Amino acid sequence: SRSGSFKKPPPIAHYNLNNVTTTPHPAENRENVLILTPMTRFYQEYWDNLLRLSYPHELITLGFILPKTKEGNQATAALQKQVTKTQKYGPEKDRFKSIIILRQDFDPPLASQAEAERHKLENQKIRRAAMAKARNSLLFTTLGPLTSWVLWLDADVIETPPTLIQDLARTNESIIVPNCFQRFWNPEKNAMDERPYDFNNWQDSDTALEMAKKMGPDDILLEGYKELPTYRTLMAYLYDPAKYRFETIPLDGVGGTTLLVKAAVHRDGAMFPAFPFYHLIETEGFAKMAKRLGWQPVGMPHYKVGYATVARA
Amino acid sequence: SRSGSFKKPPPIAHYNLNNVTTTPHPAENRENVLILTPMTRFYQEYWDNLLRLSYPHELITLGFILPKTKEGNQATAALQKQVTKTQKYGPEKDRFKSIIILRQDFDPPLASQAEAERHKLENQKIRRAAMAKARNSLLFTTLGPLTSWVLWLDADVIETPPTLIQDLARTNESIIVPNCFQRFWNPEKNAMDERPYDFNNWQDSDTALEMAKKMGPDDILLEGYKELPTYRTLMAYLYDPAKYRFETIPLDGVGGTTLLVKAAVHRDGAMFPAFPFYHLIETEGFAKMAKRLGWQPVGMPHYKVGYATVARA
Ligand SMILES: Nc1nc2c(ncn2[C@@H]2O[C@H](COP(=O)(O)OP(=O)(O)O)[C@@H](O)[C@H]2O)c(=O)[nH]1
Ligand SMILES: Nc1nc2c(ncn2[C@@H]2O[C@H](COP(=O)(O)OP(=O)(O)O)[C@@H](O)[C@H]2O)c(=O)[nH]1
Ligand SMILES: [Mn+2]
Ligand SMILES: [Mn+2]
Repeated sequence: SRSGSFKKPPPIAHYNLNNVTTTPHPAENRENVLILTPMTRFYQEYWDNLLRLSYPHELITLGFILPKTKEGNQATAALQKQVTKTQKYGPEKDRFKSIIILRQDFDPPLASQAEAERHKLENQKIRRAAMAKARNSLLFTTLGPLTSWVLWLDADVIETPPTLIQDLARTNESIIVPNCFQRFWNPEKNAMDERPYDFNNWQDSDTALEMAKKMGPDDILLEGYKELPTYRTLMAYLYDPAKYRFETIPLDGVGGTTLLVKAAVHRDGAMFPAFPFYHLIETEGFAKMAKRLGWQPVGMPHYKVGYATVARA
Repeated sequence: SRSGSFKKPPPIAHYNLNNVTTTPHPAENRENVLILTPMTRFYQEYWDNLLRLSYPHELITLGFILPKTKEGNQATAALQKQVTKTQKYGPEKDRFKSIIILRQDFDPPLASQAEAERHKLENQKIRRAAMAKARNSLLFTTLGPLTSWVLWLDADVIETPPTLIQDLARTNESIIVPNCFQRFWNPEKNAMDERPYDFNNWQDSDTALEMAKKMGPDDILLEGYKELPTYRTLMAYLYDPAKYRFETIPLDGVGGTTLLVKAAVHRDGAMFPAFPFYHLIETEGFAKMAKRLGWQPVGMPHYKVGYATVARA
């Protein structure tokens, strides 16, 4: 009988992972992109930049994870407002396929998110372990069987070329990071200036490998600290506006500021270790894990993206 | 205007991971369970056993991954037939919340799945790396924001108590394995008999740890091979029908035959390494990774589940 209490049969879904392509022309091939952002602060410029992405929005799913702190509540409210504005009242072409907002179930380890506090060497291990768990929670619960690409985009990335996704995918690589810069007021020049920001994109050095060998099993090697010189080749310093913008170089460590990854890499199991993995954690540990799984990360030293202006102590 | 081409706004979803509980009384608390099965062969007894689970089926999502081989195609067809029968025509109470069937995008490494061939020591590393990737693909694409528990159940597990999920969760542990036995015809006794099956559930030994120390970085330590005695304590041999059925013991390695895991463990990043991780891979590597993330696996030596009768060479 079609009437009465007989419920409709529950969904049965079939997916052939072979058909989920990842090509250098993802827009033309209608490939689904999942943009994932762990977020403690909401920047309006971040959202405006997202809206400017020329990748077909109907192929983009957004996923966010925010902590259950006062700061996280504020950011959630601000994000929610823009989400509603775009998805409900914005022009059709601005609207994304779907949006998932997660509130995390563990507390961030540090009370203060002030930049000076955030970067203190001794705080980094705990902080980055928490970040790794936030990224994993987000990844494990939002990646779907039809996702082709995952774009990791930090909440403070406010300036990317609108063709970001297409440009990174064009390289035909599986794990790709552009070079992230931060605008700031330079009192010496008495003008706005920019400086390299992401020191997690690097090529290994013999020194760093030797240091790692001598470390205790749970020690980690962090980049960008005077106390711990590694002599790694930092992509941040390789930028050259005269060079080919689409040049790629192999990397051994990557940052998560702006990071495009084939979903297949994550499906193989590559995640963000919250524990020391070859003396690396979080996004740097992810790069190492991906390499162990046979995927080579690359960087684009001459392709720039812009980071929010935050005073650094 | 409500007419014409104006599409309905795309979905916006909020999830508070705090509200996804995992309690010793999951059925009473309406907790969602995701049952995940990598499958090369379809056993009717496996499906019949699933149907007998007393955990409310409307809280259970099933996820399968099958290889794109001739054997995989046959298993998919057989599975598909039963899925349709249950979900479309079966009694309301038998129907599961939803079912996801994935076909994997890489080839299994070995042509023959005959048991003798499968268990050869030299084949195990490649085989288990492929298994790990299949498990990760399944896990990463099916785990949702509302999943409380993941039950890993191999396709050849054909006999469990109907209260399996409730019984394992009752322990109040985060990673729980029962003891898996295989029924077989014993020519000596001229009768049906049973023997321990899963040798991946173990407690570490000093010998094994010493062996691991002397190994090359990419070597793995496998259990259940005469060529490689580890003197680990194997849960398989601890079964005692006189003892308390709900007793738990801490484990350092686990098998995936029947394995209940809090979704939070996976969300933290615990997956199945396809590369040597502390000289362990796949489910044994998972146990080690979970421990690194602060979660302690336990076994229930006196709680039995039954494995399909397959002739062993
Ligand atoms: N959900 C969540 N997001 C976080 C947490 N800590 C940082 N983030 C976000 O993760 C990204 C990187 O963190 P950030 O503090 O900018 O790190 P930095 O760029 O290395 O200084 C940013 O998008 C932050 O908003 C956390 O504890 N939970
Ligand atoms: N998708 C997929 N499943 C597999 C593959 N190999 C084995 N399986 C399944 O994974 C589980 C464990 O494999 P099995 O061969 O039984 O391993 P054993 O119990 O260690 O001998 C079973 O459910 C198999 O059906 C594979 O290559 N791909
Ligand atoms: Mn940042
Ligand atoms: Mn088996």
